Amino acid sequence: MKQLVIALSMAALPSIFAPVRAQEQTSPDGKVSLSFSLTKEGTPSYKVSYNNKPVIKESTLGFLLKKSEPLTKQFKVIDAQKTTFKETWKPVWGEESQILNHYNELLVALEQTSTHRKMNLRFRVYNEGVGFRYEFPQQKELTYFVIEEELSQFAMAGDHTAWWIPGDYDTQEYDYTQSKLSQIRSLMSQAVIKNVCQTPFSPTGVQTALMMKTQDGLYINLHEAALVNYACMHLDLDDKNLVFQSHLTPDAKGDKGHLYTPCHTPWRTIMVSDDARNILASRLILNLNEPCALSDTSWIKPVKYIGVWWEMISGKSSWAYTNDLPTVDLDKVDYTKTRPNGTHAANNQKVRRYIDFAAQHGFDQVLVEGWNIGWEDWFDNSKDYVFDFMTPYPDFDLKGLNEYAHSKGVKLMMHHETSASLRNYERHMEKAYQLMNDYGYNSVKSGYVGCIIPRGEYHYGQWAVNHYLYAIKEAAKHKIMVNAHEAVRPTGLCRTYPNLIGNESARGTEYEALETVKPFHTTILPFTRLQGGPMDYTPGIVETNLVNTNPENHHTLSSTLAKQLGLYVTMYSPLQMAADLPENYEKFLDAFEFIKKVPVDWQKSVYLEAEPGQYITIARKDKHSNNWYVGNTSNENGHTSVLSLDFLDKGKEYEATIYADAPDANYQGNAQAYTIKKQKVNAKTKLTLKAARGGGYAIEIVEKK
Amino acid sequence: MKQLVIALSMAALPSIFAPVRAQEQTSPDGKVSLSFSLTKEGTPSYKVSYNNKPVIKESTLGFLLKKSEPLTKQFKVIDAQKTTFKETWKPVWGEESQILNHYNELLVALEQTSTHRKMNLRFRVYNEGVGFRYEFPQQKELTYFVIEEELSQFAMAGDHTAWWIPGDYDTQEYDYTQSKLSQIRSLMSQAVIKNVCQTPFSPTGVQTALMMKTQDGLYINLHEAALVNYACMHLDLDDKNLVFQSHLTPDAKGDKGHLYTPCHTPWRTIMVSDDARNILASRLILNLNEPCALSDTSWIKPVKYIGVWWEMISGKSSWAYTNDLPTVDLDKVDYTKTRPNGTHAANNQKVRRYIDFAAQHGFDQVLVEGWNIGWEDWFDNSKDYVFDFMTPYPDFDLKGLNEYAHSKGVKLMMHHETSASLRNYERHMEKAYQLMNDYGYNSVKSGYVGCIIPRGEYHYGQWAVNHYLYAIKEAAKHKIMVNAHEAVRPTGLCRTYPNLIGNESARGTEYEALETVKPFHTTILPFTRLQGGPMDYTPGIVETNLVNTNPENHHTLSSTLAKQLGLYVTMYSPLQMAADLPENYEKFLDAFEFIKKVPVDWQKSVYLEAEPGQYITIARKDKHSNNWYVGNTSNENGHTSVLSLDFLDKGKEYEATIYADAPDANYQGNAQAYTIKKQKVNAKTKLTLKAARGGGYAIEIVEKK
Repeated sequence: MKQLVIALSMAALPSIFAPVRAQEQTSPDGKVSLSFSLTKEGTPSYKVSYNNKPVIKESTLGFLLKKSEPLTKQFKVIDAQKTTFKETWKPVWGEESQILNHYNELLVALEQTSTHRKMNLRFRVYNEGVGFRYEFPQQKELTYFVIEEELSQFAMAGDHTAWWIPGDYDTQEYDYTQSKLSQIRSLMSQAVIKNVCQTPFSPTGVQTALMMKTQDGLYINLHEAALVNYACMHLDLDDKNLVFQSHLTPDAKGDKGHLYTPCHTPWRTIMVSDDARNILASRLILNLNEPCALSDTSWIKPVKYIGVWWEMISGKSSWAYTNDLPTVDLDKVDYTKTRPNGTHAANNQKVRRYIDFAAQHGFDQVLVEGWNIGWEDWFDNSKDYVFDFMTPYPDFDLKGLNEYAHSKGVKLMMHHETSASLRNYERHMEKAYQLMNDYGYNSVKSGYVGCIIPRGEYHYGQWAVNHYLYAIKEAAKHKIMVNAHEAVRPTGLCRTYPNLIGNESARGTEYEALETVKPFHTTILPFTRLQGGPMDYTPGIVETNLVNTNPENHHTLSSTLAKQLGLYVTMYSPLQMAADLPENYEKFLDAFEFIKKVPVDWQKSVYLEAEPGQYITIARKDKHSNNWYVGNTSNENGHTSVLSLDFLDKGKEYEATIYADAPDANYQGNAQAYTIKKQKVNAKTKLTLKAARGGGYAIEIVEKK
Repeated sequence: MKQLVIALSMAALPSIFAPVRAQEQTSPDGKVSLSFSLTKEGTPSYKVSYNNKPVIKESTLGFLLKKSEPLTKQFKVIDAQKTTFKETWKPVWGEESQILNHYNELLVALEQTSTHRKMNLRFRVYNEGVGFRYEFPQQKELTYFVIEEELSQFAMAGDHTAWWIPGDYDTQEYDYTQSKLSQIRSLMSQAVIKNVCQTPFSPTGVQTALMMKTQDGLYINLHEAALVNYACMHLDLDDKNLVFQSHLTPDAKGDKGHLYTPCHTPWRTIMVSDDARNILASRLILNLNEPCALSDTSWIKPVKYIGVWWEMISGKSSWAYTNDLPTVDLDKVDYTKTRPNGTHAANNQKVRRYIDFAAQHGFDQVLVEGWNIGWEDWFDNSKDYVFDFMTPYPDFDLKGLNEYAHSKGVKLMMHHETSASLRNYERHMEKAYQLMNDYGYNSVKSGYVGCIIPRGEYHYGQWAVNHYLYAIKEAAKHKIMVNAHEAVRPTGLCRTYPNLIGNESARGTEYEALETVKPFHTTILPFTRLQGGPMDYTPGIVETNLVNTNPENHHTLSSTLAKQLGLYVTMYSPLQMAADLPENYEKFLDAFEFIKKVPVDWQKSVYLEAEPGQYITIARKDKHSNNWYVGNTSNENGHTSVLSLDFLDKGKEYEATIYADAPDANYQGNAQAYTIKKQKVNAKTKLTLKAARGGGYAIEIVEKK
């Protein structure tokens, strides 16, 4: 469908500070209304409603600038334009093969009368909410400027229930808390769980995407889209008035951003619906991002992989090769003169075992962490030259292992832990990507553990945000796909750069081994973290009791085994790991079958059930067949689903294989009790399925031919 | 001569905090004595004397560390070794073709009894002074550490006269002040002249190299050698006790350095002599640096060059191509759609004119600044992506001009202004150097104008220091010579990386056009700035009244024309510019002859006269002939030299051409009055020469064959 742009009106408006007649715009379906006006001080403000219910009460907009008059008042409207846009575009990969981008736009051109500085506000109103951004045209009156703070308000209409994690300049790896907005302050200190590098900033500061539910059943989500060369936005709550205000991540000097005109901010997004499923189904964030910037995307392929990883996370093995070295100088170290510690996992024998397993079971790739020198002191040392991304340990045959993998139809997945030493990574990046090209790698898992170097910068500041995108763009030049961990939370940039096939930016499965994860975690993530793009959640742990993997590890999963299968459907990603050890999968080969079969790219997705904090059930149709896959994740109370399979093609017959919790299963002691049942189904079938406490289920529905 | 190392003694000493018997070491000629001891608190301390006169009174040593016990006391000596070293090495280029490195060393191994941390002090005693550094062996007790401050004291024995510039984290482009140490505080505010980016830190803080003279005629110089991956040291004066203490440049968080063992600090240097000429003749700083790290140096060639530069500095022309653009986005700008401003100097026609002039007069290279896009807003905007170092303006034919130059036996010199945006430079560096290789450039003038990006870092902090060396090492891989302006002051690293053929790091000739330079300036620089390595001072201004170059520029030089010639000898550099415009040289072709003839690489140098702040007269023998060149620079009072030419080979006859100030010349109104005289000379000749007020002279002495 061609894009359709219609200018509906263009009006020069009164140039006074007295409140101007509001500019209105509504969504294509008429349910969402956006209203822009100036206050009597000439301050830009806006409101959002849904079916006439207030979503955002009058909220002001503006900026504090460094050494310059604030952009907060004395504005006049010099122009206003309304347009409509409607197109359908095809993502390289995704939850569906076609995405509708349909919105009504309001562009308000403003001038600050005291300074003649121009600032525009662009609003796009979708059926599922509103996006807006600030735009600064090129002008002599405003060239280079430094943001002291962005003052975008989001005034809530009530004391909503929120699923939140603490606002933090450096990490999102927190467990979610469910509470009223008014309770955030009292719950903050217990929510700020210790992390390797963390910088919480306010007792009422929370991160986006923030999911909320109103007392009368509206679901509201605040986030941002297209975060490019700008600081990541947090939300700081005035809990007396229930008004969120944007709080940008500062740089080393406390400044929040260096910009020059012409430029614009990322989009600030307000999603709203009376049905939680619509939040999951919305593509508002992707739609607000720019179209694909890569001319050739044929090399971008969704990936299902296993990896030499969980055994380090669970404590059984090590990334490091030796325990001899208190410090490592990469230019001088000679590992052949050190004693191997005997626990180094990334060795030839083990990697071959993983390659064999991947080949046998049809996985695309094998991630190997700890292959390169320097892991003895990579952690928590603020070490500048921490890795070279080039030199393997003596027991890792870079050439031989890649050749072996390729001979079996498998690729190795590269691993670049940067220890957040950004300059060091950039210095080695070109050669590191070239090495990947030379040996036949096409994807890299990168990591940013620890505090940022240059010191004083934060993971979510403009400096680091700029770096992450640089790494993605440079990778694209080498036809490399990127899965970045500990980077800034995604904001839909994978539309523009679809080689960004994954991120972490939340508490992933690793925390099941390291600390704790609340059972409701995966019923929230699709509403929050996943709004910005796919997460490398690394599900698929079938040995739910980690004592069996490593006797020194006393953790058990917050999840049943069946739920681990369901996550492959509920946690959408074009990059999915089967995270457990081969030997563990070999104990559960019948359940493993689902992990082997489930696709990672989809024609269509149907959101069957959704309630944040409680359950999510999603059905997805394989991109390349008529088969469907259903997944459910449930919280600590479990959930009973009554599913109508009316999403199936009418008239077709299918065979369903249902991987479910056994009747006596629960995550706290009987997590591995599951049943596998086959039955014939069609579009008229109704299924009643029960997820155990902390449980879930997975269904494969194969068309009968 | 082979190196000769003799272990003279090796003694484990008493492990108590009571003052241990001092460890002594003396210079090869016995004049300089160094004494190390522990105070009764177990604090390391040292003293230096010259012919039994105190140079450094008892001064303590140590470190404050972040979140760790200070390394200041409770030390015991666990070992002490004395050795002697003597070798002669050949620099790739220099003031002489062979350098003697002869010292007696004292290595004191210390352990802090409370923490078992080990720290060594290594002292090297030369005939012209002492170098010492801290060394930290690899050890479990001390791995990664953060320096809060280095506490190296330099206790002066009197209220010496000093030639100083303000201590500053970002610039050394200050005029010198001559005063007693006790007067520094009262003179500081007037000494801190405004600069584009400056961060003075203390009312008694000064920079190294600091030159001093005692009341009884000792010349003392404090500096450092081999500054690598460490913050640049300033000196902060306790002016009650006349004790200098090291003050390191902080990072964005205020920390002074991130190190891990094994490691060592740069050398702290104390030069001393009763004859100022010995300070100029000393190679102590070079000798304390590591030998050449490059296996092939055949591509490193001293360079005499002209450049499209002075006409921008003097205000006649511009770096920028257009005046249309308030801001420039390098990815989007289209210069063909802008109006040329008509003053852009780096255009094809002008550059060809410079190439022709260079070819005609035998210059090696032509620097062209302003050739690449982005100069419209390069300055003072903290702009991250400020230059791409790749894309020429529309009126600069990169390929054609290089071909034209090469056809005439001339090279173009590349220019990389970074605007101190370090990440941006590093991101483009490989391709920028590759472009130089592709077009046949072999040298680059780089610049670091403005405050450092990443913001919060300083020009002289560990981060930036690391960058400058990175740029030099990466350049060496491309066989590129580097002349870095506004980088950290040099510390002899050109011995190890002789492709570092120049630096600015002081107030150069450009200030003659921009602000002021005191007439005594060039009588001080060889004692201070030049101790660390050559300076691209850009002498050779023959149109001393800038009104004649640009009617809007009202500056006149602090120098006569004859002195401008003398600087080619007194300001040693393997890279020398003839900075004035071709049309100005064409007005003074007879004087220009000296600039054309004077070599830039030497067999031998003889320091005939030297008094800091007053005059310097040096004779140098061409590296490739038997010809000699003599230069003099004098202060605002002028100077009369009575020179014995006994440095000439006995029995040989020479013809001297003497370029001198005319009898009525002076820098304040008759700067261009000079005489050129030829006479026969030999080793028995005595010459009486008079430098005018702000004047100087130059002599070419050619062997008669």
